[in-house]
Amino acid sequence: MEYEFSKKLSELKPSAIREIFKSLTDPEIISFAAGNPAPESFPVTELSKISADIFENHSTAALQYSITEGYPPLREAISKRQKCKFGIGTDNDSTLVVSGGQQGIELACKAFCNEGDVVICENPSFIGALNSFRSNGAKTVGVELESDGISIEGLEKALLGNPNAKLLYIIPTFQNPSGITTTLEKRRAVLELARKYDIMILEDNPYGELRFNGNDVPTIKSMDTEGRVIYCSSFSKILSAGMRVGFVIANESIVQKMAVAKQGEDVHTNIFFQMLCHRYITEYDLDAHIKDINALYRRKCQLMLDCIDKYVPASKVTFTRPDGGLFIWGTVKNCSDVSPIVQRLLEKKVAVVPGSTFNCDTSAPSSCFRLNYSTPSDEQIVEGIKRLGKVFEEL
Amino acid sequence: MEYEFSKKLSELKPSAIREIFKSLTDPEIISFAAGNPAPESFPVTELSKISADIFENHSTAALQYSITEGYPPLREAISKRQKCKFGIGTDNDSTLVVSGGQQGIELACKAFCNEGDVVICENPSFIGALNSFRSNGAKTVGVELESDGISIEGLEKALLGNPNAKLLYIIPTFQNPSGITTTLEKRRAVLELARKYDIMILEDNPYGELRFNGNDVPTIKSMDTEGRVIYCSSFSKILSAGMRVGFVIANESIVQKMAVAKQGEDVHTNIFFQMLCHRYITEYDLDAHIKDINALYRRKCQLMLDCIDKYVPASKVTFTRPDGGLFIWGTVKNCSDVSPIVQRLLEKKVAVVPGSTFNCDTSAPSSCFRLNYSTPSDEQIVEGIKRLGKVFEEL
Repeated sequence: MEYEFSKKLSELKPSAIREIFKSLTDPEIISFAAGNPAPESFPVTELSKISADIFENHSTAALQYSITEGYPPLREAISKRQKCKFGIGTDNDSTLVVSGGQQGIELACKAFCNEGDVVICENPSFIGALNSFRSNGAKTVGVELESDGISIEGLEKALLGNPNAKLLYIIPTFQNPSGITTTLEKRRAVLELARKYDIMILEDNPYGELRFNGNDVPTIKSMDTEGRVIYCSSFSKILSAGMRVGFVIANESIVQKMAVAKQGEDVHTNIFFQMLCHRYITEYDLDAHIKDINALYRRKCQLMLDCIDKYVPASKVTFTRPDGGLFIWGTVKNCSDVSPIVQRLLEKKVAVVPGSTFNCDTSAPSSCFRLNYSTPSDEQIVEGIKRLGKVFEEL
Repeated sequence: MEYEFSKKLSELKPSAIREIFKSLTDPEIISFAAGNPAPESFPVTELSKISADIFENHSTAALQYSITEGYPPLREAISKRQKCKFGIGTDNDSTLVVSGGQQGIELACKAFCNEGDVVICENPSFIGALNSFRSNGAKTVGVELESDGISIEGLEKALLGNPNAKLLYIIPTFQNPSGITTTLEKRRAVLELARKYDIMILEDNPYGELRFNGNDVPTIKSMDTEGRVIYCSSFSKILSAGMRVGFVIANESIVQKMAVAKQGEDVHTNIFFQMLCHRYITEYDLDAHIKDINALYRRKCQLMLDCIDKYVPASKVTFTRPDGGLFIWGTVKNCSDVSPIVQRLLEKKVAVVPGSTFNCDTSAPSSCFRLNYSTPSDEQIVEGIKRLGKVFEEL
């Protein structure tokens, strides 16, 4: 039979990344297309020890239904760490445990957007968030992302042009896909504009702790005194991505609304892994673990950049030089649409993600592509960038 | 600052069950209000063994990002078991792993309902599903639930009166909250009407395997040849509720749409526990384990019914005598609103859930209440029903 799907889903297609992943079954392909953390970033031995103890001594609590807001000791540990280390959270704020940062993004949209409302986003932006907004019936409107962050002029124009904009979605630190970090000045300007036009800010910060060069820039949330910012982050890049544990810090009344919606989505997040997270944070040295991850990523990023300098003609393509996160962003000169090059790369057994994937306007072409250095091995980085360089040489 | 929440969420309130749970911090209260499986139903030793082996030998796959549709070996194991044991699933169907049955319900609504569309439900029905529909902007329209299942006459009337009805949500076996099982004849009539009025059926079956008396009645899905039924179930009541692993079996194109929406909600379900589930199903005897659970529930249900017969005046309140599931449903005679009685019970330290909680029309009172026998201990069942009986004696 023919199905009549909801308007919001009938227009939504699986992301191009998913389609690229399907082609990755060919073992000869070197993939720079993923956004996966390095397997070395999972503290397997420690998690295994805690897990055995939970089964031994706390199995009923760990396998039974739990409360929607999250495991109270984990909520407390998160609140404390975010407040002490990053100045995030006020007395009016509360912490909600979510099933990965992705769920925080989705719930924020559900809490503030009716069908047809607008979410303003950096352009390009994280495809998972864009599709989440779309699957809730919201429209995404993109604002140009400059090398120092979102265009402030463009943002004001978008706010003026979209009175039904309810959320500004922004990834200020090591943005996905571009790796760009928004300057402090621009963060202040963003908060100022959000106040002026009375719009909520959804600050997504999954990569913030992955800094291997330079100094932290304060989050927008840490400058927020009135409760305008919904802050979203996760343990995916610092403990385990597969466990799907993230968190939201926002005004208590927002967290309450999001919790009601979360109850309708999955009742609560896997409680066993919430307990595991809590035990790891309180019994081990998470900061030291993150330092190790960042040493690894500094080395892998530098290796990829060195290979780029050596093998890729700078006359044809330029690259960002990130201070953290997981991605390098390439821009092809004198190119309106990178798709044929991405296709050519795939033929030469290198997978990258075309920039168009991350566009708010899904039909707009892009001259950019995204490279990931956390997932491939050192050998794959060297060989893959060699192949990539050769394709650009031959252009 | 004041927040302007989305229409769908601003009207939604935390469920009454949640509010009752908050009062349960008093250790003297005996709670029949939960819907939790008995802790004895978790195969802790086996899960612990598998878990240790996963950490030892498969940690990377178990902690890394995975695919949205679910862990392929688990999907296969589910499909095979459902097909062989219950005749569920055709060649055009596919299986989607979800984060608890709750997510299957939510995704089905997202896939088929625009804001303002109607979901027809049994009245009363599962509050988690009703709130999930509401949080997606759908309206719930209730059809009277009779002692042998949904009123067929009422259903046709609802279908005629709501041309924008997109889904019929139904729990045909050991319904929550009533414990009622829909007869085979009525199941056939439901499918017939759904065809006639071209509406999708969302069949929720979390309790189906918890039968301790009588014979299975075929699911509606097993009679569905054209792909009209979305079948939703979970491992919450047979392995662990806290792990949040459930599944949907539906036509491949529906599963694809739901997977796109799921990607925007939580990317994928906790992969470690998907692997754990798969290993348990394939390496241990799930059917034998379920048999043990049902022996336990038969005994606990019978204990509660015996206490009811002994302590509760039959002249004032009648109870269902379920053949499975987790709930007994009480109906108070000559009573239009059970709320003051539920309040009185709480004062006497017994918690039950008032029937109004499960009404599609949230403002409508109810003469019924729900009792759960899987969570309390035997001693609590005896003492709690004594207290309950005393309150009714004194009415």
